[in-house]
Amino acid sequence: MAFVGTFCGAASRVENRRGLLSTARPAVSSSGASSFIAPVALKRAAATNNASGMTMSDVAVAKPLLQQTGDSFADMCINSIRFLSIDGVEKANSGHPGMPMGMAPAAYTLFQKHMTFNPKNPNFVNRDRFVLSAGHGSMLIYSLLYLYGYDSVNMDDLQNFRQLGSRTPGHPENFETAGVEVTTGPLGQGVCNAVGIAMGEAHMAATYNKPGFDLIDNYTYAIMGDGCVMEGISGEACSLAGHLGLGKLIVMYDDNHISIDGSTDISFTEDVGKRYEAYGWQVINVPNGNVDVASIDAAIKEAKACTDKPTLIKVTTMIGFGSPNKSDSHDSHGAALGKDEVTATRDYLNWEYPEFEVPPKALDHFRTKIPEGADAEAAWYAKFNEYKAKFPELGAQFESNVLNGELPSNWESDLKAYGEGAKANATRKLSEASLQVLGKAVPNWIGGSADLAPSNLTIMEGLGDFQKTSYEGRNLRFGVREHGMGAICNGLVLSGYNLIPYCATFFIFTDYMRAAMRLAALSQVGVVYVMTHDSVALGEDGPTHQPIEHLASYRAMPNMNMYRPADPVEVAAAYAVGVESRKTPTIIALTRQGTKKLENGSYEGAKKGAYVLSDNSSDGAADLCLIATGSEVDLIVDAAEELRKSGKTVRVVSMPCWERFELQDDAYKQSVLPDAIPTNKRVSVEAMTSFGWAKYAGTHVGIDSFGASGPGPAVMELFKMTVANVVEKASSL
Amino acid sequence: MAFVGTFCGAASRVENRRGLLSTARPAVSSSGASSFIAPVALKRAAATNNASGMTMSDVAVAKPLLQQTGDSFADMCINSIRFLSIDGVEKANSGHPGMPMGMAPAAYTLFQKHMTFNPKNPNFVNRDRFVLSAGHGSMLIYSLLYLYGYDSVNMDDLQNFRQLGSRTPGHPENFETAGVEVTTGPLGQGVCNAVGIAMGEAHMAATYNKPGFDLIDNYTYAIMGDGCVMEGISGEACSLAGHLGLGKLIVMYDDNHISIDGSTDISFTEDVGKRYEAYGWQVINVPNGNVDVASIDAAIKEAKACTDKPTLIKVTTMIGFGSPNKSDSHDSHGAALGKDEVTATRDYLNWEYPEFEVPPKALDHFRTKIPEGADAEAAWYAKFNEYKAKFPELGAQFESNVLNGELPSNWESDLKAYGEGAKANATRKLSEASLQVLGKAVPNWIGGSADLAPSNLTIMEGLGDFQKTSYEGRNLRFGVREHGMGAICNGLVLSGYNLIPYCATFFIFTDYMRAAMRLAALSQVGVVYVMTHDSVALGEDGPTHQPIEHLASYRAMPNMNMYRPADPVEVAAAYAVGVESRKTPTIIALTRQGTKKLENGSYEGAKKGAYVLSDNSSDGAADLCLIATGSEVDLIVDAAEELRKSGKTVRVVSMPCWERFELQDDAYKQSVLPDAIPTNKRVSVEAMTSFGWAKYAGTHVGIDSFGASGPGPAVMELFKMTVANVVEKASSL
Repeated sequence: MAFVGTFCGAASRVENRRGLLSTARPAVSSSGASSFIAPVALKRAAATNNASGMTMSDVAVAKPLLQQTGDSFADMCINSIRFLSIDGVEKANSGHPGMPMGMAPAAYTLFQKHMTFNPKNPNFVNRDRFVLSAGHGSMLIYSLLYLYGYDSVNMDDLQNFRQLGSRTPGHPENFETAGVEVTTGPLGQGVCNAVGIAMGEAHMAATYNKPGFDLIDNYTYAIMGDGCVMEGISGEACSLAGHLGLGKLIVMYDDNHISIDGSTDISFTEDVGKRYEAYGWQVINVPNGNVDVASIDAAIKEAKACTDKPTLIKVTTMIGFGSPNKSDSHDSHGAALGKDEVTATRDYLNWEYPEFEVPPKALDHFRTKIPEGADAEAAWYAKFNEYKAKFPELGAQFESNVLNGELPSNWESDLKAYGEGAKANATRKLSEASLQVLGKAVPNWIGGSADLAPSNLTIMEGLGDFQKTSYEGRNLRFGVREHGMGAICNGLVLSGYNLIPYCATFFIFTDYMRAAMRLAALSQVGVVYVMTHDSVALGEDGPTHQPIEHLASYRAMPNMNMYRPADPVEVAAAYAVGVESRKTPTIIALTRQGTKKLENGSYEGAKKGAYVLSDNSSDGAADLCLIATGSEVDLIVDAAEELRKSGKTVRVVSMPCWERFELQDDAYKQSVLPDAIPTNKRVSVEAMTSFGWAKYAGTHVGIDSFGASGPGPAVMELFKMTVANVVEKASSL
Repeated sequence: MAFVGTFCGAASRVENRRGLLSTARPAVSSSGASSFIAPVALKRAAATNNASGMTMSDVAVAKPLLQQTGDSFADMCINSIRFLSIDGVEKANSGHPGMPMGMAPAAYTLFQKHMTFNPKNPNFVNRDRFVLSAGHGSMLIYSLLYLYGYDSVNMDDLQNFRQLGSRTPGHPENFETAGVEVTTGPLGQGVCNAVGIAMGEAHMAATYNKPGFDLIDNYTYAIMGDGCVMEGISGEACSLAGHLGLGKLIVMYDDNHISIDGSTDISFTEDVGKRYEAYGWQVINVPNGNVDVASIDAAIKEAKACTDKPTLIKVTTMIGFGSPNKSDSHDSHGAALGKDEVTATRDYLNWEYPEFEVPPKALDHFRTKIPEGADAEAAWYAKFNEYKAKFPELGAQFESNVLNGELPSNWESDLKAYGEGAKANATRKLSEASLQVLGKAVPNWIGGSADLAPSNLTIMEGLGDFQKTSYEGRNLRFGVREHGMGAICNGLVLSGYNLIPYCATFFIFTDYMRAAMRLAALSQVGVVYVMTHDSVALGEDGPTHQPIEHLASYRAMPNMNMYRPADPVEVAAAYAVGVESRKTPTIIALTRQGTKKLENGSYEGAKKGAYVLSDNSSDGAADLCLIATGSEVDLIVDAAEELRKSGKTVRVVSMPCWERFELQDDAYKQSVLPDAIPTNKRVSVEAMTSFGWAKYAGTHVGIDSFGASGPGPAVMELFKMTVANVVEKASSL
């Protein structure tokens, strides 16, 4: 097939399938000429065009310039974005050019005409937020940050895309690049983060705004692609967003019909707009996002005008728009276009600038956002000063909690006092009481459960439900949507209001939300996960509900605090670490069943991750050391008593958090687990897989198979999680 | 609030919200009398009705019998199901009575009037399949299995619901109870399993049916609840089911408006029917599933009549139907009703039989399915014998592969020969070639990728795509739906056709599908997971895409083979284990980057999980032992050479699968990792967390933090995954 045929085929495909606006674009004849479209000579020499082996140079034909917006200044700006993205990927010889090429017009329209932000202070509290949920198109956001004058991305960074140490990693990372709100790449997560950010905005506005003082009043925008829409997680969060009527959430769906396997026709033919309408969203179609910036602009306006529903703007685009041979194909999705095709694309779009060069007029235009943004922030502060004068208490709270992320002075003393004064109970009950303490003490503490509130015991009394009519409520109702919940909580942290969210389900169901939890750990987001029913002792629900490998699997994850507290003091300590750890998420695993209150339970010790509960040796070199976490600490306390009766010296160690313990200095670590008691004299006891314990102990009382359905005590007995078994195993050492 | 008020409130709620058929049910006045509804005296004595402290016995009032189906025989059968479920939960004092009470009419209508099955052979190949996706309602399926005469559930089992060792665990388990097709409980999974089963049916029918011989021709039914619908996983699989036009998939949605947190109004107000229409499903509403069995029946008929779309039957019910005080409330969801309320429910529904007693007439009626089912199977075999005569080759293949689950004789020799003959490459490329071998050799080998086929390299050439118009295709196109993919593959295994499915994505994205993978392990389902891009060496995509904790997290999971092969021979061995392991899933982690071919790579050794590649000591007690997996085996081979140059004796061990190694006898284990080389002389090398390696080695070359974006070799260098570092660490021992 020769080039003319290819081009015409592509053109008619476009017209038939993508619905290019006929008013804006005269028909292209097979001769390629039209009064509106300038013919451009093709310079490509050797690129093979298709399987026939013919090359474009074989075909002498004038080449039509691809239709652009009709506004040459806008074209210049849009192509500035496009070619920075193309060039960045090209230089790295790695990355995803197709999405930025297709979505540059939408991104430009959004940033230029709608978004308020301050490039010189990416953290301006009332900025509009933007999330690139289709994170593989990272060069789009890097190009925008550069063009708008963010200090975080300079020309060197663009030229070092995807290189070690650059601020332009393969996928956007909030912790590397100021202006990147959230870390994306794993599909579907970003749009859910955006839901969380919009929830944060709604909560802040409801909590702090007063008549005449819209202190918090901003939009959350996101761009997602077919992959994001296909992922179940996005359905979860977007269904909730519809339920909550988040009118300031505006998501553009880059409907380009291409995913890695090729056309979405092979696996994804649902009616996305109708699905989002079913969720309770407003849905607006932009049939030609490649060129029709007026419709994009109108759609965003319409989205903003709808205040009681989130809006999905379905922007139909052509992936790799502008690439004569790779557009509308997965060839432009995930690899550099190649030198020849980049040249062809420059020709095609009539782009005369060399690589990484931006027309000065365009750059000037983009950079007008710098003073505009500074003005916006200054105006906001002026208003805030008025607010503080009029509402001194709320104003002070806003300044301290929201702007500065400070915690009230009493929060930890209240928590510790609760823990030390509380009676024994199931640790989930102790968690419930801790939540009440934090709910009172910490204004930015907010959270809820994935439809297990009566089991997780996560309702904060008197603090109201966060609902469409009551965004000031601090109890979140996630529905049975664990994965969406996890990503929403990431968004709440990253919303920029210093919110501290907790979320809850059964510990086993962290499996549903693991990808979001990993992103919390990776992107340094201090969510607190309240995970009850933490072992086979939950009983009758059986092995589908009984965690076995879960503690180990989170201990293996970097930057994750995995707590399993044993009693009220340890529960309080776990929460304290969770609240303090703003850059490390914390899981708190909690029992369904009752536990005892430890005689020597230590708040400080629990915060350090491990500590000695008792030791009857005189020299710190006991015959045996028993180590346990959570509900099994009761077992080793009793077992130690038995063993001591038979003349052994025994050290008893509670070890609620390995990661915190590993952060302590060697002296502390030796004071708890000294070399004088070698691992072959230590026994770990945990109603869970023994996997990983070899690091601390040579003998294990654990459960390395799946659980069983029966009353909790019977199940524990079945798996020999008994004092007798601990004594027997320890005695044999 | 007194009882009358409570009841009337409930009744009017029902009428207003649930749309009870006015033709079938006269209005209930506050006096409780009507010509159609028999008053029943309440016998409850002491149950506190509400927060006012008033009890039902305080209120002397005649009680209306709740409207039933209008067919007293059907009522008797339906109430047999209801009360077995109520009594089972009550005796266990644990479980979920509400759902079976609400859905008994739908389940009865489905099983009695529509389903073909043989109670005495739950594996009859052409049976209709039923999946209880709302697995917490397990007493519903146990009651049905008992009533229909399955040997797997007798009266003792019903009375031992949720007790250790019973065949009636808390949630349905396929491996415990014949007649339970899949293990459910974790929400959303079951309906996706059902999609997989329906795909299996479609594939079998397309592969084996001939004109006049509909060898495989059955329906897959499922019941799901609000929780299943909220979970994103169900959206993924149901979108794909719509795309694939699975006309024989019929899902009943128990729309009871109640989840654990209370009314679904607090978090779930989307239009589910519209969403499913958007997926391409037929949607039928049954407004009163509590009583209107005629409409349920008609809906199922309509569903069957639609051959090119799956059908969602939205059956609106009242949870806990029949319980005067706990229906329409989450009180009946997840706990026993309590003795008094059970009595009140018996009164309410005019049920005169004591606990666990089924009216003989009802039992006789249910048990007519025993001869009917036997006849159906006999007729099928008669037809199959004709088929075999007419199509001897296909008939023999069906008998061998589908009925008996046998593998062709040459499959393993072909695979092994490929591995031994192949040249070095990226292990994902070697995997691709292995897939071609298996595709040719094993007719029931089927699978695909979650939209990463060109990266995972998972297309089997010449075997066609499984699409709506080509169900005989063996390449599955899952779209970007990892979790749905995992659950669909579980369904494919459990479809009962002895299919062996593989599925693929980047190793990191197992995080999205972990809950389905755990269910594979728990429910003894031998899926093969082809997981490429298995370390930071994947390079530029960066830390969002780079696995760190993943190997450890799967090694910690019971009944999961976690393979990380190093070269062609080991890749072939990993696939062989995957194919053989019909009751254990197998993950195969594969590199993006090139690897060397090992000089002494051993197929048998790799199948055993670990083996010695080389050892230059004379006594089996080398100075050092280096252990690695996958691409890092190349590192230790080179490091050993260096170390030997400096006079050390070094053993080099490749350890592609810990779990398989642990299954070997002690003699074999000692032959690989002898006590003579203690752990403090062993170094593990893996470009991944060192978590867990303490069991085998005292020193680790690993990566215990998140990765980084850059070219693969640069990233490996950054994290010191180098020969030099291995030599240095080992030299220091």
